[in-house]
Amino acid sequence: MTTRIETDTFGPIEVASDRYWGAQAQRSLGNFKIGIEKQPKPVVRALGVVKRAAAEVNMALGRLDPAIGTVIVAAAQEVIDGKLDDHFPLAVWQTGSGTQSNMNANEVISNRAIEMLGGVMGSKKPVHPNDHVNMSQSSNDTYPTAMHVAAAEEIVATLIPALKHLHAALDAKAKAWSDIVKIGRTHTQDATPLTLGQEFSGYAKQVENGIARIELTLPALMELAQGGTAVGTGLNAPVGFAEQVADRIAAITGLPFTSAPNKFEALAAHDAMVFSHGALNTVAASLFKIANDIRLLGSGPRAGLGELSLPENEPGSSIMPGKVNPTQCEALTQVCVQVFGNNAALTFADSQGHFELNVYNPLMAYNFLQSVRLLADGAVSFTDNCVVGIEPRLDNIRHGVERSLMLVTALAPKIGYDNAAKIAKTAHKNGTTLREEAVGGGYVTATEFDTIVRPEDMIGPK
Amino acid sequence: MTTRIETDTFGPIEVASDRYWGAQAQRSLGNFKIGIEKQPKPVVRALGVVKRAAAEVNMALGRLDPAIGTVIVAAAQEVIDGKLDDHFPLAVWQTGSGTQSNMNANEVISNRAIEMLGGVMGSKKPVHPNDHVNMSQSSNDTYPTAMHVAAAEEIVATLIPALKHLHAALDAKAKAWSDIVKIGRTHTQDATPLTLGQEFSGYAKQVENGIARIELTLPALMELAQGGTAVGTGLNAPVGFAEQVADRIAAITGLPFTSAPNKFEALAAHDAMVFSHGALNTVAASLFKIANDIRLLGSGPRAGLGELSLPENEPGSSIMPGKVNPTQCEALTQVCVQVFGNNAALTFADSQGHFELNVYNPLMAYNFLQSVRLLADGAVSFTDNCVVGIEPRLDNIRHGVERSLMLVTALAPKIGYDNAAKIAKTAHKNGTTLREEAVGGGYVTATEFDTIVRPEDMIGPK
Amino acid sequence: MTTRIETDTFGPIEVASDRYWGAQAQRSLGNFKIGIEKQPKPVVRALGVVKRAAAEVNMALGRLDPAIGTVIVAAAQEVIDGKLDDHFPLAVWQTGSGTQSNMNANEVISNRAIEMLGGVMGSKKPVHPNDHVNMSQSSNDTYPTAMHVAAAEEIVATLIPALKHLHAALDAKAKAWSDIVKIGRTHTQDATPLTLGQEFSGYAKQVENGIARIELTLPALMELAQGGTAVGTGLNAPVGFAEQVADRIAAITGLPFTSAPNKFEALAAHDAMVFSHGALNTVAASLFKIANDIRLLGSGPRAGLGELSLPENEPGSSIMPGKVNPTQCEALTQVCVQVFGNNAALTFADSQGHFELNVYNPLMAYNFLQSVRLLADGAVSFTDNCVVGIEPRLDNIRHGVERSLMLVTALAPKIGYDNAAKIAKTAHKNGTTLREEAVGGGYVTATEFDTIVRPEDMIGPK
Amino acid sequence: MTTRIETDTFGPIEVASDRYWGAQAQRSLGNFKIGIEKQPKPVVRALGVVKRAAAEVNMALGRLDPAIGTVIVAAAQEVIDGKLDDHFPLAVWQTGSGTQSNMNANEVISNRAIEMLGGVMGSKKPVHPNDHVNMSQSSNDTYPTAMHVAAAEEIVATLIPALKHLHAALDAKAKAWSDIVKIGRTHTQDATPLTLGQEFSGYAKQVENGIARIELTLPALMELAQGGTAVGTGLNAPVGFAEQVADRIAAITGLPFTSAPNKFEALAAHDAMVFSHGALNTVAASLFKIANDIRLLGSGPRAGLGELSLPENEPGSSIMPGKVNPTQCEALTQVCVQVFGNNAALTFADSQGHFELNVYNPLMAYNFLQSVRLLADGAVSFTDNCVVGIEPRLDNIRHGVERSLMLVTALAPKIGYDNAAKIAKTAHKNGTTLREEAVGGGYVTATEFDTIVRPEDMIGPK
Repeated sequence: MTTRIETDTFGPIEVASDRYWGAQAQRSLGNFKIGIEKQPKPVVRALGVVKRAAAEVNMALGRLDPAIGTVIVAAAQEVIDGKLDDHFPLAVWQTGSGTQSNMNANEVISNRAIEMLGGVMGSKKPVHPNDHVNMSQSSNDTYPTAMHVAAAEEIVATLIPALKHLHAALDAKAKAWSDIVKIGRTHTQDATPLTLGQEFSGYAKQVENGIARIELTLPALMELAQGGTAVGTGLNAPVGFAEQVADRIAAITGLPFTSAPNKFEALAAHDAMVFSHGALNTVAASLFKIANDIRLLGSGPRAGLGELSLPENEPGSSIMPGKVNPTQCEALTQVCVQVFGNNAALTFADSQGHFELNVYNPLMAYNFLQSVRLLADGAVSFTDNCVVGIEPRLDNIRHGVERSLMLVTALAPKIGYDNAAKIAKTAHKNGTTLREEAVGGGYVTATEFDTIVRPEDMIGPK
Repeated sequence: MTTRIETDTFGPIEVASDRYWGAQAQRSLGNFKIGIEKQPKPVVRALGVVKRAAAEVNMALGRLDPAIGTVIVAAAQEVIDGKLDDHFPLAVWQTGSGTQSNMNANEVISNRAIEMLGGVMGSKKPVHPNDHVNMSQSSNDTYPTAMHVAAAEEIVATLIPALKHLHAALDAKAKAWSDIVKIGRTHTQDATPLTLGQEFSGYAKQVENGIARIELTLPALMELAQGGTAVGTGLNAPVGFAEQVADRIAAITGLPFTSAPNKFEALAAHDAMVFSHGALNTVAASLFKIANDIRLLGSGPRAGLGELSLPENEPGSSIMPGKVNPTQCEALTQVCVQVFGNNAALTFADSQGHFELNVYNPLMAYNFLQSVRLLADGAVSFTDNCVVGIEPRLDNIRHGVERSLMLVTALAPKIGYDNAAKIAKTAHKNGTTLREEAVGGGYVTATEFDTIVRPEDMIGPK
Repeated sequence: MTTRIETDTFGPIEVASDRYWGAQAQRSLGNFKIGIEKQPKPVVRALGVVKRAAAEVNMALGRLDPAIGTVIVAAAQEVIDGKLDDHFPLAVWQTGSGTQSNMNANEVISNRAIEMLGGVMGSKKPVHPNDHVNMSQSSNDTYPTAMHVAAAEEIVATLIPALKHLHAALDAKAKAWSDIVKIGRTHTQDATPLTLGQEFSGYAKQVENGIARIELTLPALMELAQGGTAVGTGLNAPVGFAEQVADRIAAITGLPFTSAPNKFEALAAHDAMVFSHGALNTVAASLFKIANDIRLLGSGPRAGLGELSLPENEPGSSIMPGKVNPTQCEALTQVCVQVFGNNAALTFADSQGHFELNVYNPLMAYNFLQSVRLLADGAVSFTDNCVVGIEPRLDNIRHGVERSLMLVTALAPKIGYDNAAKIAKTAHKNGTTLREEAVGGGYVTATEFDTIVRPEDMIGPK
Repeated sequence: MTTRIETDTFGPIEVASDRYWGAQAQRSLGNFKIGIEKQPKPVVRALGVVKRAAAEVNMALGRLDPAIGTVIVAAAQEVIDGKLDDHFPLAVWQTGSGTQSNMNANEVISNRAIEMLGGVMGSKKPVHPNDHVNMSQSSNDTYPTAMHVAAAEEIVATLIPALKHLHAALDAKAKAWSDIVKIGRTHTQDATPLTLGQEFSGYAKQVENGIARIELTLPALMELAQGGTAVGTGLNAPVGFAEQVADRIAAITGLPFTSAPNKFEALAAHDAMVFSHGALNTVAASLFKIANDIRLLGSGPRAGLGELSLPENEPGSSIMPGKVNPTQCEALTQVCVQVFGNNAALTFADSQGHFELNVYNPLMAYNFLQSVRLLADGAVSFTDNCVVGIEPRLDNIRHGVERSLMLVTALAPKIGYDNAAKIAKTAHKNGTTLREEAVGGGYVTATEFDTIVRPEDMIGPK
């Protein structure tokens, strides 16, 4: 491996010749040999967005020589496009401000721009990583800005479409199954009937609400810290820089980013991330419930509840031939549990800011973006490989309704709660039907029973 | 203790004569001897609200004899007014639907109404706990309705005013201290300056955002499950009952409650509680950060950061005479940690619904309402006993700014990042001032230095 | 209400005449109006233990006049015996060191001792709360000592017996049901058979392991901070005080308490509490699994898994007559979720010590002791009101085994996994029996099938 | 890309020719496109260990033809040695039993063994993935066994040595600095003195305790599920298989693995993982406290506590020249927060077993192993790049002690708590020294003061 010399204020250090990064990224590789988790790609992309926007505004404000600014924009665009992903090798577990990843971006863009201009990589001339690429910026506003940009982009581009996809599938089932009357279950015990469509309408509603909740949290994610520089004051940035950068980022991404109204808050706390992840956390709770219900309703095939038939995607057991399992439910519920854990980590991290800076940025970005990705992928996989292929097992469903003792509830308004209870308890004890006990016990006539106790009439108010 | 006989479908049971509750509450006392935590008072009140509203609607719809309905309303009003609190003895740790607390309310109102009518308590005549007080209802919609009513009422009546109180105090400090230039700190290390007012404006903004976040979550809490009855279908409730009850509850409470658009979702999941608590969780993270900063800024009196003087409210030590501690910060941060724990519990609970019902209702109500109460009380105590009395220690603050090496940042745009770094590092090593090294090193003239490096000019963009 | 004047270094303050507490407790009541949660009774008792032990050692070492020490011991014994519980009114949410509760104990004991000696309450003569009752102590070692004493006493006296009680009941079921062959379920799907006794033996083993885990954590809880005084150095305590107090506390409580080998660790961190609560957390996970299984195995009565019949303890529904629910499972699983939340809170709190002191003591004590109490009460309630009364539903169990397709697994060693899978899949598709497909498909003879596929022979290795 | 056809009971599927995996792994790749997290390498290695051990025992028991078994052992050894890592592509987010990763191992070993024997990959001849490689096993016992093996190996090989490394460094500092008297801090406020060595001895003790706690949890991790096969009964495994496999695994790994005494517990619950992670969680709380203290003690350089000088490893700011930050503390505290989140996820997952199986295995393995790796790497990085290079800033430390008001505590035993408090408060108000106020106020003579108030005599009991 051939190397070149890069330098920073700590002195020279060798870097592989085919890597664009500089001294600080190289130093970070040596100082933080922790774990295998790297800075998330959406953060790298977002750093590219920030660097491009900053260069454009610095040029527009006359602070940055267009000869330099133009190549910074071009190099930053390559970062945005993912062409330089292999040049962002840093760990999540580094300085808590993300300074080293900001410098990684500054260095890569500086060297790539120098290369475009035919200069010597590592010379910092004519494009200096700090003085030019980082102009008017600090890691303290850049990295939090990148966090928000990455979080918002991922939510809008992947998670919300994925949840809409799942919602559509659940909603289609709710409509398709609106006439299938089945036994309800409360406390896991037999209860009054409802339709399978109604049951799935509850699931669909949960997902619909979840999308709306995530969207409620987006406006705060759209507020960007950029322009606060070192401690929130905006020192070394020109007046108007914050607002113009936000405008440029909005233009580049197509999302309505704005400048955070208070930069001290924006650097020292990341409450918007926690609140937004609270919506993800709620969605995870919803999806857990839905997937868990579906696996239980699909339990069997012969000694379970057996109301649903789930798609068979793969052999289920290495020892039990012919076994098929609700594996999509299992993958999705595991994803949800991961999100619950991430919520705890994000909350903890957000509370731990000191003075003008929170130094848990990479952790927050990592966990937030993992949650988004897992929920999105999990929802799509669950939809395509499970929900759309679910079929009702009509015989089992019908059988469950017919034998239910809780149909007695329909009699209560006529004969009173206490008498109705006696009928149900006697039938349970004797293994008989409600009809036998209700009519035999003289509570109602057979005709009355048949008129009142009709599952298909018990699925709504009257 | 004298007793009377109460009965339910399980048979007779003795109840103390001076208690209004009936057989099911009594049975619950025997079956669930777990812990010391009782159903929260706001839930009891909310059950009174629900029972009154239901009776009013049942009368309006012609289903309930006004002779009975009127006394139910009167007795329910006593529950609302807290006059019957001693008659709600049940534990949090009971059936997960809250059925026993719903029955507790039915029984208390039934017996109190019977008493008002001169009847025999326990006779269920002429006011039956199930057939009349619980008419058109199930525990499965009643208790979740009470949870939402209690949560919304507590947030609106106590938490939001408390946070506004805190916000006003922080905002007043931000304004009063807008001219006090102090050293900034990032990574807990000396950084570029800002004003003490700016620092507190970040705290104020966090609280302001927190209030807005909680308010964003209120509309979903305003949606009520009532009318779903047993499994969400509305069986045994008349058409229109759900909407009219919501209207009545809105009228009684003065809050804009509505009927949940999908009752299956409203019974089987309590996502609205989790999302709303996510906002509380975010507020707790904010308050933790603020209180922690204030205790560190107030550390000393002689060997700490010493920038703030906190009110002295009590002796701080049983062994160290004269010690005074940031006790309000400690109480508040403990409150925040409790909220973090509650968030984990609520999330877990919400994910565990089975089929048509979530059976973690009392736990969710208990934790949610504890968080609201603690945050509200904590915010008020912190405001009144700490924030309003904080004074800046101007000598210490001035001293910190004067010695700071990070003022060198102002030179960077003129002499470049690398030269500026050399100045700071040399001064640090030699224990000298920036001015000595900058001028002595020939980087700038003394006049230039004095013109550029002015802390009071470093607190905003230029 | 009549009052007397109490004083501390902040000056005079009025206290109700019939209360033993003094100025600092009174001040705390005014300064911390937060929530309804009070210092746990086991902590109050443990403070009594500490004060008695300290007085005894101070006398033995000749530092405390026996005329004073003897009444301190007598008053402290009243605290231990719970006679003075009404004189400990302070909130959990106070100073994080618990200083005010330590002073509450000092004041109550001082005044009660003064009263015993015929003196004037509030005079601090002849028994001074700081100079005598708190002699050789600081809140910083006293409160953590009380936390450990309370935690250990509650675990030993209530939780471990409760878990043993549950274990015995589960183990009895495991033995009683050792011959009942039932269908196994993995992924909630039908699997190879096992006995109901084997299934319950797994539950029993979990509880047995849980007890052992808790016991593994006890030795560290037995290490006491007492003797570290203000910062861990032991300033103002005599040499030997730490060890002798631990001996006295061991004698008073009957538990093997020792002196913590490093007092700096013992004041600044409460890792032993977190590790011990980690064992409680694991037990909660176990109990959750057990209770959840039992409710699902008891689901029905007609459209559920229906393998177990759970005791019917109360009416299950306010609307559905005759419904009976697994309410003990619900109470216990709620308890477990509370413990999970408490684990998060305790972990957070423990990580937040600063320098020589952790100031989340009351929160840690409150959550730890709540977990112990809830798990203990929950286990006893679940055992007595559910486990002991569970009966197998033999018809349903037999029916489930007979129809199972997973019995085909027994054929795999003979005919290979792939052929066995074909048999199971064909039978599933055709709704036929394994025997029909296995013999009809020519894989085995009828005799071979009947010899190999015997559920009662499939419940162990061969 | 050339492909070959692989088959399973679902039919044929194309697999890249240069990959050893078979139909089920390939199917899993298509069905679970979720996230970027792969099965952890230690689990892959552990699956190799299990497969080798099982083949050896199957041969020893005469069930497996040595001609086949020998190549299975050879192929499994390549898995153990990491030579086939590229052939284990499956996601964490798959079926919750880990069945697909077990099959991945079976398929890779089958095909590699076939290749060794010169056969046709995908033919399953002469080495069948189920009938031979998986002989006497089920995913349900294999994957949990691999979890325990991986967890135990990682703890023993990486985490414990890393923590011992950190402990040694902290302990060395404690000893080296045993004579440096510094101000103590409780509630972040000035308190009585201690030595810097005593302070670090508390940190060292926390780490020492943490190691001991982890070791306490190892015996349960050493218990292996292998031999339980499908549901815990051991169906299709020979008598003695469980114990002999555990012996073989012990021999291969050099760790004292044993056979779990109850296989039903071992499949349906993973309590041992949760308890062991509870120890990791406690260690994380310890490390958080230590790292947080060190960053605060190193705060400055001029406007912080300034007692410690931390190693300068890299430039700290992209905008503030010369800034150096406590980046190792930040990386480590982020690691700790990740562990806290993982603890929540593991606890949740463990509670969610259903009947005979817990289906959160891959999630549990992933989070557990991430915690081990991050804590180990984090501890080493923190030790080598921070702890060993910390230097005390003696001038600042001396200055802090000299000015402290809390030295007054030494006077309390002589003049009483109340008088001592007056001295401290007056000195605080007047900005004077304790000596001035104590002598000037007539409480003690100058000689008495100088004899009693000696910081170096206040660091232990007397």
